[in-house]
This record gives sequence, C-alpha cells and structure tokens, in this order.
Amino acid sequence: MHSKERIRLYDLAMADPSVRVSPHCWKARFALAHKGLEADLVPWRFHQRGSAESGTATVPYLFDGDQLISDSWRIAVYLESCFPERPSHFGSPDAVPLARMINSWIDLTVMPLLGRVVIPDVFEALDPLDQPYFREARQKRFGITFEDLRAERESWSLKFLDSLAPLRRQLSDNPFVSGTAPGYADYCVMGAFMFARCTGNSNLISRADASVVAWNDRMLGLFGGLGRSAPVVI
Amino acid sequence: MHSKERIRLYDLAMADPSVRVSPHCWKARFALAHKGLEADLVPWRFHQRGSAESGTATVPYLFDGDQLISDSWRIAVYLESCFPERPSHFGSPDAVPLARMINSWIDLTVMPLLGRVVIPDVFEALDPLDQPYFREARQKRFGITFEDLRAERESWSLKFLDSLAPLRRQLSDNPFVSGTAPGYADYCVMGAFMFARCTGNSNLISRADASVVAWNDRMLGLFGGLGRSAPVVI
Repeated sequence: MHSKERIRLYDLAMADPSVRVSPHCWKARFALAHKGLEADLVPWRFHQRGSAESGTATVPYLFDGDQLISDSWRIAVYLESCFPERPSHFGSPDAVPLARMINSWIDLTVMPLLGRVVIPDVFEALDPLDQPYFREARQKRFGITFEDLRAERESWSLKFLDSLAPLRRQLSDNPFVSGTAPGYADYCVMGAFMFARCTGNSNLISRADASVVAWNDRMLGLFGGLGRSAPVVI
Repeated sequence: MHSKERIRLYDLAMADPSVRVSPHCWKARFALAHKGLEADLVPWRFHQRGSAESGTATVPYLFDGDQLISDSWRIAVYLESCFPERPSHFGSPDAVPLARMINSWIDLTVMPLLGRVVIPDVFEALDPLDQPYFREARQKRFGITFEDLRAERESWSLKFLDSLAPLRRQLSDNPFVSGTAPGYADYCVMGAFMFARCTGNSNLISRADASVVAWNDRMLGLFGGLGRSAPVVI
C-alpha cells in the first residue's frame, strides 16, 4: 500500500550528480511520470552497492514509505497495482506479459550491443570512486577492455542500429510501440535511448531509421520534456 | 464479412504436398485453430506466384468466399474482426500493437538467423519446378550460396539459439509468451519453430533452453496436436 510520503527513487549518478544515464532507472522515471507521481531522485553510486539501507546491488530501487521495491520491472508492476486510479502504463492485464517480452528484447538483444558502444563513455563520466569497480565488472562481463571496445565502436554501432529492425517496422505502422499512445513498452525502449543520449551519444540515435528518430523526438517531449531536459555528459 | 463457405488458406507445399514448412502459413493455421475455424489448405508452390487467382507473390493468403486476405498479420487481424464471438487470439485491443512488435521481432531478428540454417533443407524438399527460382531468390537475399550456408550451419545455429534470449526469460516467468494462455504472439514464435521442425530440424529446437523446449512441447500439443502431427521432411 502506498505511504503518504513522497516516493524516493534511487538512481545511478555520475561524477556530476545531475547526470543520470541508467537505462533501467529511466524506465522507472517514465513509469512514475506516466502515473503523474513525483518522486525524490536520490543519487546512488556503485560504491554504495549492497549498503544496509537497500540491501540491493543494483539500481533502480525505490522506497515508498519503508517499503522497498527493487528492479525496474517490479517497480512498474508495483506502481500499476498501487495506483490503479491513475493512468495505466500497461493497459489491460493481457498486455502485461507482452510488455514484459518487449522489455526482455531490449535488455537481452539491444542493450548488449548498445552497451558495447556506450560503456567506455559511462566509465569516463563516473565518480572516480566508482571507476575501478566499474572497469573490472564491465570488462569481465563483456570479455574485452574498454580500450579495445573503443576501437570496435563503429562495428558495434552498426550492430546496434541493425538490432532496431523490429522497432523500425513497428513505428512505421504505429506512432508508439504501444500503439496510439505511449505505454510501458515505449519506456523500456526509451530507457536504452536515454542511455545513449545522456552519455553524449545522441548522434548514434540520429543515425536510426526516420520513423525511429521521429518516435524518439516524440518521446523526448513527453511529460513536459522529461527526456529532452535531462542533463547529459559534456 | 464472413462468407458461409469454408475458408481456403493457400499454404506453401513441398514436393510431398503433405509437408508444409512456411513459418507465416503456420501463424495463420494456429490463428484459425484458435478461432475454432476449419479451413481447406490449398497447396501453393512458388511457380504459381503472382497467378491471376491470388494476385499475390507470397503465401499465406486466404479466400473467405470471394474476399482475398493476404499476409499473415492481416489474416490475424481479419479473423479477429470477423469472428469476435469466437476466442480472441489477441486479447484486448491494447495488446494488439504489442503482439505486432513481437511478430516483427521474430520476422526481423530471429527468422534471418534460422533461415540461414534451414533454407538449404527447404531447397532440397521443394517441388523441382520451384527449385531454380528459390535458389536464385534466396541466394540473392542472403548473399551466399546454399553450399556455403551449409558449411556455416553450426555458426548460424548458435546465433539463432542466442537470439532466443528474450524468449528464454519470458518463458521462465510465464507458461506462454502471451501469459497464462497461448495467443497470437505465441503463434508468431511457433511459426518459426514449425519451420525448423517441418524441415527436419527438431534437433535444433531441442538445443534451446529447457524453458523454451518445454513451451515448444506445450505448443505442439495444442488443438489436438496440430503441430505435433504435421508431416515433416523425411
């Protein structure tokens, strides 16, 4: 049950704490905005992971009063069940599993490619205290040094753009992934696009198909320009 | 509006006309079965493409009386709008665009990889009259000869299995892609799996994650074993 206090969303911050790049945190921010909920965005950094307060090793997580919800998908489900009187980001119940599948497509097919383009830029922008952990963990995950990733940048960029083929077709037929209005499936995709934008890689998005670029522009304008006004890495 | 006559579905046939491998035709067959509709399956071959009767160059297409509906997605939408009193394969209207997106994921991300594994087997099984056209068109599309594709078979098999990562996660959390019961998004994925099965590549599917293999087994049993009882290439 929702507490009367403001929700606190823990969101990865860079060395400049106004810059927030995490794709999964962006999903949660768009879901909150869709519900018309204001939340306090608490800056979180990797060296705080597993602290006593959250007990989680990843962001986003949120506190609603003393209730902890972690993982962007669980946050989306929680907000939907806790605020049924507010606009739904899932639509009807039988659309929920399909949104989940599209979320998995972004996380497991698109993000590994985008990550290989953008991760070295995240590293540069991080709080220096976060850099040693981040370098070690990500180089291990991707099995390659950041320096070698930089050298392969264009090749991964092309693979990322290719992976958007289903999105290109969807947005040729519909203004939004979810149809005539944006919903959680759009916010899942937009999380990845904000990851590119906020790490200074808007030029990568602008190379996508025209229908995708136009959708990105519509998405940046939602909720008073939530995406467009977000600070980016200089 | 639905005619009182039986629907005729035009479906790609191999040299053995009982063998039907087309993934898109399988989508239409599952959608018809979901609606509880019986249809006459008319064998179609590539050398009939663009004939006066259909005016289309691809299958599936169906005739409901003298009304022609081509393209598997349009068939799915047509059946839903024409038979609203029968079980819905889309669920609610706001699930339709999300099913479309999952269809595009299968068509544009998964199928190009599976196609590179399976296409040489399709060629072998085709009516000899279809083989010259098929070889030329597919070698052009993929930019590689069938002989070279065969040599790369294991590499494309691994890429196909990797591309199922979103499906693996979905089916770890849900019995079906569409949630608790199968729907059109499942039939889109199953179209690809029937393509593998009917071309004699069930062993490829059996290498997928356990959750995917178990789902495939459930899907094969639907509608009185529609998938399981389908003839396959010997």
